[in-house]
Amino acid sequence: MIITMAHGSGGAATSELIDEIFAKAFDNDVLNEMEDSAVVPGSGRIAVTTDSFVVTPLEYPGGNIGRLAVCGTVNDLLMRGATPKYLTCGYIIQEGTDSEELKRIAQAMAETAREAGVTIVAGDTKVIEGGGGVMINTAGVGFVPEGVEISATRIASGDVILVSGNLGDHHATILGSRMNIQNSIQSDNAPLGEMVQALLEHQIPVHCLRDVTRGGLATVLKELSESSRVTITLDEEALPVAPAVRDFCGLLGLDPLYMGNEGKLIAAVPKAHAKEALELIRGAAYGEAAAIIGEVTEGVDGHGELLVKTAIGGLRQLDVLQGEGLPRIC
Amino acid sequence: MIITMAHGSGGAATSELIDEIFAKAFDNDVLNEMEDSAVVPGSGRIAVTTDSFVVTPLEYPGGNIGRLAVCGTVNDLLMRGATPKYLTCGYIIQEGTDSEELKRIAQAMAETAREAGVTIVAGDTKVIEGGGGVMINTAGVGFVPEGVEISATRIASGDVILVSGNLGDHHATILGSRMNIQNSIQSDNAPLGEMVQALLEHQIPVHCLRDVTRGGLATVLKELSESSRVTITLDEEALPVAPAVRDFCGLLGLDPLYMGNEGKLIAAVPKAHAKEALELIRGAAYGEAAAIIGEVTEGVDGHGELLVKTAIGGLRQLDVLQGEGLPRIC
Repeated sequence: MIITMAHGSGGAATSELIDEIFAKAFDNDVLNEMEDSAVVPGSGRIAVTTDSFVVTPLEYPGGNIGRLAVCGTVNDLLMRGATPKYLTCGYIIQEGTDSEELKRIAQAMAETAREAGVTIVAGDTKVIEGGGGVMINTAGVGFVPEGVEISATRIASGDVILVSGNLGDHHATILGSRMNIQNSIQSDNAPLGEMVQALLEHQIPVHCLRDVTRGGLATVLKELSESSRVTITLDEEALPVAPAVRDFCGLLGLDPLYMGNEGKLIAAVPKAHAKEALELIRGAAYGEAAAIIGEVTEGVDGHGELLVKTAIGGLRQLDVLQGEGLPRIC
Repeated sequence: MIITMAHGSGGAATSELIDEIFAKAFDNDVLNEMEDSAVVPGSGRIAVTTDSFVVTPLEYPGGNIGRLAVCGTVNDLLMRGATPKYLTCGYIIQEGTDSEELKRIAQAMAETAREAGVTIVAGDTKVIEGGGGVMINTAGVGFVPEGVEISATRIASGDVILVSGNLGDHHATILGSRMNIQNSIQSDNAPLGEMVQALLEHQIPVHCLRDVTRGGLATVLKELSESSRVTITLDEEALPVAPAVRDFCGLLGLDPLYMGNEGKLIAAVPKAHAKEALELIRGAAYGEAAAIIGEVTEGVDGHGELLVKTAIGGLRQLDVLQGEGLPRIC
């Protein structure tokens, strides 16, 4: 098998790459859970995660790769209910990069870390050949409060699915930047600690949290439906998409359901707590456009399924992103 | 400032890059210690570190980038006296990479992790454009036993400096591979847990441990002399270099003092414990060629200094690696 760009899409080809190569080689109980971050025993429960960031352009409306690299890893820790504490960062820098740009990236990283309440405690730099460009890996360490059990396998019949805001903003921003399109769209890259903390502090019995990144909402929910062996039915009309993004997608023939975000999460909570959860998310930073978007019922024959009720009354099956799907942003 | 390959050398230019950009932006007490890994409070003391790995060729005599990526991070944890426990890995893969090569790399990573006693608990893959190639970031988490205080600032007058084996093997291997030279030189890439554990178990009051990687022994010891404000005087004749590497360096005009290793450490221990420490390291895996190579005396006017007594009786000052110094391997 020769690796192609499709293997980086976050969809089916990425799963194949991970299953065939890495899951087989590294096979262990913690990794096999394939959660957003690993929860491991130390004294207490420690959450550990990592993510690498490659994006062109490095700076875009609403953020840059430095802010992105903090948000992505902090959010992965939060998705297990962990309190993010420490970050490491590894910079791979192409020769020819302007140190002024590097300063702005590092500065945004520092500011976003402060916003998210994490400390960057270790770092590494490597310089490679090339014509200017930066790739950043961050790893994160957090602590999971006692009693918190949030996992991809805990979504249950009777849950509702909430999303914390508008879909597709980051993806549309990056594509628009590359095409030099002038519009009002900004990346949603943001740390989601305030809304997660609000849910936990108010004792909402959250079953699952997942940030909606590469592969988009459909890929994330399809994977979760399989992990929890449930049917998730989305209401197309309830899916929040900002008007400018909707127009942008319409023009280019893109589907917001498969577009990446960098500051959105889905939450699965029991129906009885859905309204309170929605209010809590809406009241927290970056949650003002949150919405209830779907319901969970029993899986069929132990399988997971993702359906969407379309605006004209149909019921359509959704799969994970296949191949390239749409113009790549990472 | 435009970033050049020299900024990745591990020497003076790298220090400038880190000081000017990252240390300023991320400024905090833990990071400012600039140790091999950060020791942070959790419940207990947790060590955290990260390293990115770029090497051409990806596979070389004695190892590959997968083994390297485990050893580098595990060794950084060990250098604080921590017991390594968990690793994360982030793969950045160029399209065009053959999945068979990727399998061998992941397999070596898994085997080396088992050897080192760590579990790979989280991972990430990204695919970028290019013509085949892999970069790996690993981050590591370990736990520091109570009472262990090993740091770059604790080297004291009256200590001796030990090195755990021959210098320059990894660097010579990579250069030889690139030049298609057939010889017996193999990379020393190895996890150093057994020797560190032996020192700690036998209550050797180790003041400082540091693995000798990018920049070589001279850069590492010069930096440590500054952190601890001491004078370190090396005995040139005591420096262990394998005959094949000595010949290779002689032919190419390379200085083993500035060449990178991936399975060697230096230890600073009080003179009274030096002989026992040497025997313990020699008795552990990868320590058979260990040697006592120098002595520590007071710094002059609070400054650090690195000197070498040459074979013909002179005394020469050594500095950190400047500019590119010698053909780059990472």
